[in-house]
Amino acid sequence: MGPDLETLIQKISRLPGLGPRSARRLVIHMMKYREQSLEPLLQSMENVRRNVKTCPICGNVDTFPDICSICSDKKRRKDVICIVESVADLWAVERTSCFTGQYHVLKGLLSSLDGRGPELLMLDKLQKRCGENAVAEVIIALSATVEGQTTGHYIRNFFRDKNLKITSPAHGIPIGGELDYLDDGTLAAAFSARG
Amino acid sequence: MGPDLETLIQKISRLPGLGPRSARRLVIHMMKYREQSLEPLLQSMENVRRNVKTCPICGNVDTFPDICSICSDKKRRKDVICIVESVADLWAVERTSCFTGQYHVLKGLLSSLDGRGPELLMLDKLQKRCGENAVAEVIIALSATVEGQTTGHYIRNFFRDKNLKITSPAHGIPIGGELDYLDDGTLAAAFSARG
Repeated sequence: MGPDLETLIQKISRLPGLGPRSARRLVIHMMKYREQSLEPLLQSMENVRRNVKTCPICGNVDTFPDICSICSDKKRRKDVICIVESVADLWAVERTSCFTGQYHVLKGLLSSLDGRGPELLMLDKLQKRCGENAVAEVIIALSATVEGQTTGHYIRNFFRDKNLKITSPAHGIPIGGELDYLDDGTLAAAFSARG
Repeated sequence: MGPDLETLIQKISRLPGLGPRSARRLVIHMMKYREQSLEPLLQSMENVRRNVKTCPICGNVDTFPDICSICSDKKRRKDVICIVESVADLWAVERTSCFTGQYHVLKGLLSSLDGRGPELLMLDKLQKRCGENAVAEVIIALSATVEGQTTGHYIRNFFRDKNLKITSPAHGIPIGGELDYLDDGTLAAAFSARG
């Protein structure tokens, strides 16, 4: 099938959630519909490469000349910062439309096994931002995994005695979830946080 | 998240086997690993756009100046042509390494419902090739679906009285398949073709 196609299939198959089979399928689709699929996709990826940058303030990715649309939005609250693990999580919180503050996107979670240390959290930068913007509350919205909770604990410790309200989203029964199928830890957390 | 990212996510989510969720995941991966993922992928897609063409003889896609590596391979037999529905099927047959003849890739299967007529089969072109290369056998390797079988039947009819051996791959029990789980049609076919 030629080296160019093989290389492309290999590259696509390394993307998350894809394998050699789906990569082959995608490439064949793109070859079959060059005008409708390959060309616009290439164009779009080039636009993203050229225009999309990481915000130097919060770490969001966006099309912008300088800082991202969330950081530059005058209508959003400046006194609440939500810490998220990744841009994906930032987008997830944004989709709920229930948070109108600022973000701080980590470069990763702490993991001594993988050699990921506190420098990924950029807490000095965050602390500086808190001081400059009179931030009153920091929301730690990290995954309820071991790494997420360890990182959250570290951040709480860092901000201890700094006169800041540190909160986290509640644990509990997912909307639409059945009690019967819920794991014991979640159910216990939901019961002790009942109201 | 900005119009460029949204456009890219939308375009990726229209690819076969992907949806909005996986498209978002891919884009976030590409933004996170720009140097390792986005840049090489773009480069590779541009190479494919520039170098990969459809073979005017068989319909295969390949990196080549004029005709594809299969058509120009002197070691392959010229007297057998295998008809496949798509380049994906051509690649599948090539992976078996058991066929060393030529190919004829259809532009689609007959379907009166979808308005796909015999012009997609390019049978005149195929007939001309058969004459020029003293082809003795045409293998119809189409899917065992209604459309595939209808198209196969049409092609058999077309080549009737043309002094060509028309064959198809055998139907039967898949290697590693259990009799118990096999559908009745396949089992019946396997029994009547026993040997």
